Amino acid sequence: MEQRRNRFSKYLSDNNIDVAFINSTENFFYLTGFHTDPHERLLGLLVFPEADPIAVLPGMEEGQLRETGWSHDVIGYADHEDPWVMMGDLMQEKGITSVNSAGIEKQVLSYGRSESFFGLFDQVDVKDVEDQLNEMRVVKDEQEIAIMREAAELADFGVKVGTESLREGVTEMEVLATIEYELKKKGVSEMSFSTMVLFGEKSGQPHGNPGDRKLEAGDFVLFDLGVVWKGYTSDITRTFAFKSISDKQKEIYEKVREALEASLAISKPGTRIGDLDKTARDVITKAGYGELFPHRIGHGLGINVHEFPSMSHLNDGVLKEGMTYTIEPGIYDPKTGGVRLEDDVLVTKAGYETLTKTPKELRIIE
Amino acid sequence: MEQRRNRFSKYLSDNNIDVAFINSTENFFYLTGFHTDPHERLLGLLVFPEADPIAVLPGMEEGQLRETGWSHDVIGYADHEDPWVMMGDLMQEKGITSVNSAGIEKQVLSYGRSESFFGLFDQVDVKDVEDQLNEMRVVKDEQEIAIMREAAELADFGVKVGTESLREGVTEMEVLATIEYELKKKGVSEMSFSTMVLFGEKSGQPHGNPGDRKLEAGDFVLFDLGVVWKGYTSDITRTFAFKSISDKQKEIYEKVREALEASLAISKPGTRIGDLDKTARDVITKAGYGELFPHRIGHGLGINVHEFPSMSHLNDGVLKEGMTYTIEPGIYDPKTGGVRLEDDVLVTKAGYETLTKTPKELRIIE
Repeated sequence: MEQRRNRFSKYLSDNNIDVAFINSTENFFYLTGFHTDPHERLLGLLVFPEADPIAVLPGMEEGQLRETGWSHDVIGYADHEDPWVMMGDLMQEKGITSVNSAGIEKQVLSYGRSESFFGLFDQVDVKDVEDQLNEMRVVKDEQEIAIMREAAELADFGVKVGTESLREGVTEMEVLATIEYELKKKGVSEMSFSTMVLFGEKSGQPHGNPGDRKLEAGDFVLFDLGVVWKGYTSDITRTFAFKSISDKQKEIYEKVREALEASLAISKPGTRIGDLDKTARDVITKAGYGELFPHRIGHGLGINVHEFPSMSHLNDGVLKEGMTYTIEPGIYDPKTGGVRLEDDVLVTKAGYETLTKTPKELRIIE
Repeated sequence: MEQRRNRFSKYLSDNNIDVAFINSTENFFYLTGFHTDPHERLLGLLVFPEADPIAVLPGMEEGQLRETGWSHDVIGYADHEDPWVMMGDLMQEKGITSVNSAGIEKQVLSYGRSESFFGLFDQVDVKDVEDQLNEMRVVKDEQEIAIMREAAELADFGVKVGTESLREGVTEMEVLATIEYELKKKGVSEMSFSTMVLFGEKSGQPHGNPGDRKLEAGDFVLFDLGVVWKGYTSDITRTFAFKSISDKQKEIYEKVREALEASLAISKPGTRIGDLDKTARDVITKAGYGELFPHRIGHGLGINVHEFPSMSHLNDGVLKEGMTYTIEPGIYDPKTGGVRLEDDVLVTKAGYETLTKTPKELRIIE
């Protein structure tokens, strides 16, 4: 964490930013190692080019932050105190008085909080430091990768539980509840997004909601789920056939699989990120299903389940060793149902590794 | 919804605000009846003093919005389109060109999005419309109350499942998983916050995390949980003793119950909100436990599980018929464990009604 903070301080120094205020739980965690979400209460980290950082959080959480080894200043405020005033006072006390340029996470910090923060200074240039933090977070270190491996393994386990819960007449919500129950028993306290279990025609909605739909022979069964594990996320999608499969369903399935494999095949350091989308989309478009693949190929994965970079065809960035992201092509037919297959991918020196290991060969569940 | 929008438009008109941009999923839902969370993608509602509102959301969700009966303009953008440009164009087209004052939710809208929004106009005065929307949402109508009753009933059910899952050696996470499993089977797709199940000394942490702690005779068992149901939330806390209870534990329990009852007793239209906290705190302080009750007495409850108003002793507002909030006093002893009891309260003409019905008499579970 200290290394990360030092790197960020150097960035501030190089860009003549006198102070940055970090407000997101994710970047706070990334820079401190302490994960907390005090909801409407203020959480913050003041980072400077030279001076030591200052953490700001509700007083009742100060002890937990200290337990993680935090040795710098903490503003642990009570509900009746104004943390902004306390920040101003402490900066004054530490001689941090000449602030001409202040960095924030522009897409995170609310307009109201930005007013409070900028109000601490006479007049400041506003700089966005979010891109820099996104950039730093894109490449994972060994410790992060080890955790993400565990998170992906738990996602695989969730799919396994799901397939084992399938029987004629079971509802989407019953299967969903069973998956989350078994994951909770393994210590998962939070899913990384609302678990999706969709049967039949409902799998044909890219953003369908699980409900009372009962499983029938001939249905597609789509699972999309992930966990939050030690501060990191996973995100897997698999689609299965139940009891039987039509030729049309089989064709859709195989095209999606082909698209995923094609996109995986070019995953290696140096590949243009936008080409991952293009490669998969070309497969699907050539097969005549281009209109039924309405979303981007994937997204960065890490502390957030959707993080930088956005894996659209427009992205001119290149893959680097240590990057983690999803590839998730899909074809959604409102009648026949839909297929999506999604892997969590780690870029390695030689190419790639999928962190999610559930097989992708078409499987008809009896 | 139309009535709500008209009331909000009148507010804009009365305050010379030419346009408001609503960005929170909660207020979007409140004003449209459509609940969606497109995460990092933009969701918005433009509201004007005179002109019809305009909804802004990802194109793939436009159909769902229309299905709810939305008959006004929709900007349903694709990932490669810039919704801000589309908003500017549509306002131009509709002749909305003279904007001198623009309203936002200051604590919600990010600084970055505020730049995009204000960039649509030459120069604007920034107004905060959040307080007005909070004020409108504070008093629930009959339909909202009916849903919140159901949400509270599901929370009661969650506690019932929890108590029935207790046996020597079971872990906090196992009980938690069972509760959520049974709720999911009833159609609950989302809890209103991370469910808390804490045993023994862990109940003595106001913000403890459920884990592997095994249940032993003599433990306190604290449940704090709630559901999201049809867009509204519930939030209940109950504490039980397992197998046996010490005199010290009993004393703590009864003081917390007394504090809750005292605060409930003054819940009626016209009561100063801050007095709810003061009344409960006086009971606990007189008993010598004031230091062990470190948080406010409660919070508003509705679309958000924590919403306006904040029920601290500083709040000089008064209760009105139709308001819904929590009362949740607690005493937390790091060794003996803690007790918190929390009801969801509806202010009625005559006084109050608790939406949560689980009994509060001390119960020792065998």
